[in-house]
Amino acid sequence: MALLPVAEALERVTGGLTPLETERVALDRGHGRVLAEDLAARLTQPPFDASAMDGYAVRAEDVAALPATLNLVGQAAAGAGFTGRVGRGEAVRIFTGAPVPDGADTIVIQENGDEVSGRVTVKALSSASHIRPRGQDFTAGEILLTAGTRLGPRELMLAAAMNHAALPVRRKPKVAILATGDEVVPPGSKLVPDQIVSSVPLGLAALIEVHGGEAVPLGVAKDTLESIVTLARAGKSADILLTIGGASVGERDLVATALKSEGLKLDFWKIAMRPGKPMLYGRMGAQRVLGVPGNPVSALICAHVFLLPMIARMLGLAEAARPAPEAVLGEPLEANGLREHYMRARSVWSEDGTRTVRPLPSQDSSLQAALVRADCLIVRAPSAPALTKGARVKIVPLDPD
Amino acid sequence: MALLPVAEALERVTGGLTPLETERVALDRGHGRVLAEDLAARLTQPPFDASAMDGYAVRAEDVAALPATLNLVGQAAAGAGFTGRVGRGEAVRIFTGAPVPDGADTIVIQENGDEVSGRVTVKALSSASHIRPRGQDFTAGEILLTAGTRLGPRELMLAAAMNHAALPVRRKPKVAILATGDEVVPPGSKLVPDQIVSSVPLGLAALIEVHGGEAVPLGVAKDTLESIVTLARAGKSADILLTIGGASVGERDLVATALKSEGLKLDFWKIAMRPGKPMLYGRMGAQRVLGVPGNPVSALICAHVFLLPMIARMLGLAEAARPAPEAVLGEPLEANGLREHYMRARSVWSEDGTRTVRPLPSQDSSLQAALVRADCLIVRAPSAPALTKGARVKIVPLDPD
Repeated sequence: MALLPVAEALERVTGGLTPLETERVALDRGHGRVLAEDLAARLTQPPFDASAMDGYAVRAEDVAALPATLNLVGQAAAGAGFTGRVGRGEAVRIFTGAPVPDGADTIVIQENGDEVSGRVTVKALSSASHIRPRGQDFTAGEILLTAGTRLGPRELMLAAAMNHAALPVRRKPKVAILATGDEVVPPGSKLVPDQIVSSVPLGLAALIEVHGGEAVPLGVAKDTLESIVTLARAGKSADILLTIGGASVGERDLVATALKSEGLKLDFWKIAMRPGKPMLYGRMGAQRVLGVPGNPVSALICAHVFLLPMIARMLGLAEAARPAPEAVLGEPLEANGLREHYMRARSVWSEDGTRTVRPLPSQDSSLQAALVRADCLIVRAPSAPALTKGARVKIVPLDPD
Repeated sequence: MALLPVAEALERVTGGLTPLETERVALDRGHGRVLAEDLAARLTQPPFDASAMDGYAVRAEDVAALPATLNLVGQAAAGAGFTGRVGRGEAVRIFTGAPVPDGADTIVIQENGDEVSGRVTVKALSSASHIRPRGQDFTAGEILLTAGTRLGPRELMLAAAMNHAALPVRRKPKVAILATGDEVVPPGSKLVPDQIVSSVPLGLAALIEVHGGEAVPLGVAKDTLESIVTLARAGKSADILLTIGGASVGERDLVATALKSEGLKLDFWKIAMRPGKPMLYGRMGAQRVLGVPGNPVSALICAHVFLLPMIARMLGLAEAARPAPEAVLGEPLEANGLREHYMRARSVWSEDGTRTVRPLPSQDSSLQAALVRADCLIVRAPSAPALTKGARVKIVPLDPD
């Protein structure tokens, strides 16, 4: 079986995935969710011509010649407008955000007015009218947030200002995490020889949640068909079954064999990728199955390259406007082998914003401490030629995760 | 009262702030938290010399001349090592991650061996030994994560591999949010004239949580001393009291007056900043009080510039290694006025990673829809000279929030 190129594997893994169903969430539960529909404003903002400054609402013709002394006939504040009309020779004290009273068409900023016993003398005039016209920010019915937008603080703030109390968002993709291995024990265990501490499920659960999915940890299966099947069944309702481990020759067959007995249609299990060659992918009914290596570094990189795009598709996330980021090599690179290589690398930013990357000294995929020192991956195409220092390379940023 | 420069205001606002107390959280609750202590590995990884490949564990001297045929005397898998010793003329089938058996010092990768009825014929040898020495990743007692690190998926994965079940983290800074305004109503309300929809508390709550704080919404106070005092008392246990609104002349006095009756020592309430001039700051006992304008754009920018650094200090967050980011101007800029200006701007990334920014056409701080179209703020120092297209400017990124 020839090794599958990463791009083709990615196409198969994300192929046919469509956004999940829509659900409504209250605004204060909306952070990080992805909008399922275009969102139209439910009001016009500002709803009236409003003052942009603290000062005095006047008629332009009354201040054509300066200084001009006007009678103060009232006050207009945000939430408490002046209900009368500003007549000839009259002014209304006004505060930022207040409706401009009928009759007035100009705001004199307060620094330009002297107020004495019910009268204001206007000494100077700025060129601007200091009036925010009705609808300057947005008008009712206008679409201000589009489907596929991830909701951050500013988007939520705007949705509130648009007078929405709840929002239509995509259901979170459920990712059930099935780890395997007789030797795997929970963190904090007293270890006996040959045991290793489970770390991948926890890290991938956090990664899934950060990117808008819902992680459902199923636990660690023993290396028996029965144990794997039992856990897989517990994760049946998930959109994606993510298996971890079973990467070595004997084990891989175990996971694939167990899931085949549950209806898995295996698509591929070897990709031209480093690290991560023995990755498994297929479908089990409506569920997608992705099997990443048990090695933490390989598992995390495979999740970045394959799982996150799956989640993004299920969320209907709009494509990023930003092109795939690049960086400048801080040292030469040797020619690459036959597999697409995701090299752990560390960046230095210069003041002009240039990101210079250097691969970590060892690319051994068993080095987990090094993965934390890395902040991005340098992507090298199969058989890519050697590069000199200063060459541009494609990267996958790892921060913020 | 002269306007206070932003840098000095920031110094006062963050001055004397020290990291909050330490608490322990289970690993699966650790995401986004900040490590309070250096974290040492509780084990050595790998705990033994381990095979880096699937293949055969042999003695180098037995494969000095090729081909060489060896007797297979056992198998070593991860979690199930070979307990015997590899003697002269012997080999052990071995899998990635398994302990290298006593006696063996070389791994022959499986592609280089032909296995027939209990014997393996080694045809070729790679230059590497394919053995990961004990402790190659890390050794017990080694500090791999330092105090002040924010815990993302990779850090949690490493902490697990270090055999920690729980982690010492900083308590989340509690920020009580007190909005004001008779005219302010909750999102989704049927509006009558002069009412405006509350949007800032919700947006700032999300911003606070993203940056590792705990938001405590107190609700919207009426424009009376009593109402403000009542809500402020409800937020007494918070580390920071964040007031919103009270930015116009009359209102500002109301918030300050109300809080003074509760013991507020006002530090400043006017800064040389645009937008955001009427910002209030002081202390009320052990509590810090920050008052941002009610205007959503100003409120969000003040929170980015002042509140987030306060939270970072309370979390003991390590300073970012990355310098304050810069970008390239996509169009000329006029000279700045007397206040530090935070201009809403939109970026375009070129393939070489350069970020080109253009200020939005209108910088009116009442335009909330525009705030969402912006992805960063261009920072302009007081009285900064005009700049030409292509000049470099300091920016504050708004994404990811």
